[in-house]
Amino acid sequence: AMEKLFSKELHVTVKCRDIRLTDNGDPYFLFNLTISEEDFQTLKVQQGLLIDFASFPQKFIELLNLCYSEQESDSPRFLLYLSCQSPVLEGSATFTVVETNAFKHLNHLSLRLAHGSDNEVKEYLAVCLSSLKVEKQNLYTKLKKTEEDLSRQLSYAQQ
Amino acid sequence: AMEKLFSKELHVTVKCRDIRLTDNGDPYFLFNLTISEEDFQTLKVQQGLLIDFASFPQKFIELLNLCYSEQESDSPRFLLYLSCQSPVLEGSATFTVVETNAFKHLNHLSLRLAHGSDNEVKEYLAVCLSSLKVEKQNLYTKLKKTEEDLSRQLSYAQQ
Repeated sequence: AMEKLFSKELHVTVKCRDIRLTDNGDPYFLFNLTISEEDFQTLKVQQGLLIDFASFPQKFIELLNLCYSEQESDSPRFLLYLSCQSPVLEGSATFTVVETNAFKHLNHLSLRLAHGSDNEVKEYLAVCLSSLKVEKQNLYTKLKKTEEDLSRQLSYAQQ
Repeated sequence: AMEKLFSKELHVTVKCRDIRLTDNGDPYFLFNLTISEEDFQTLKVQQGLLIDFASFPQKFIELLNLCYSEQESDSPRFLLYLSCQSPVLEGSATFTVVETNAFKHLNHLSLRLAHGSDNEVKEYLAVCLSSLKVEKQNLYTKLKKTEEDLSRQLSYAQQ
């Protein structure tokens, strides 16, 4: 199954050479890839990359930004494709940055990500939960402050 | 390790004969027990219970409420104890309802709960996350409505 990425609003996290794919709408959707220098050398040969290991994260982020900047376009030049095994949440997913020009589809980079284990998903969800709790608490604080501020202004205006 | 339950603000969920123990402050804390009619008969003999299987959930909830109602007391008569293996999040936990009178500690009921697997914790966290998202959205809606209402009243009062 081929799937256009941004129809799912996926999140791509690149941290050093750790790549993580998540979906806000699906708590169990978690794919990971850690690229070692050795992995990168294999990838470089297989896919004919010209960049080196040190500049890979930055170049990868630039590619993602190209795709991101064209997500509103009717005929985007750069697209992300995600191809999953069935069922989606077992096994691996292949994540591909594709440029489409008048002649053909060009694969810029293709990465194979493994689905997170139950333990990894569990840890990921605990982090989500903890940051959502902070956001909810901040919202609650803001609500109380807004109520107070506006009530004070209101009672002042009504005097 | 013996641990007084409400120092941790645990949540006890009783749904038919499924008992679940969670802790808002610790996303990985999840203990489960499903009591079949057969399990119950063993429990009944071992612990000398007088209730039958059908009334067990209701009676158990009544015991919990007794404990809950005394949580503010300086010398509570009913207490919940949780005794865990070390490390806490592996293996099982024993959950005991204890009445203390002038003579002795009386065990009313003692249940052995198993720690949730990674998969169970994962599913539990996904449910938490989803309900927290709803709560956060409701709070956001309330904040916007409060801002609008009070601004409207304020501009009316200032005219």
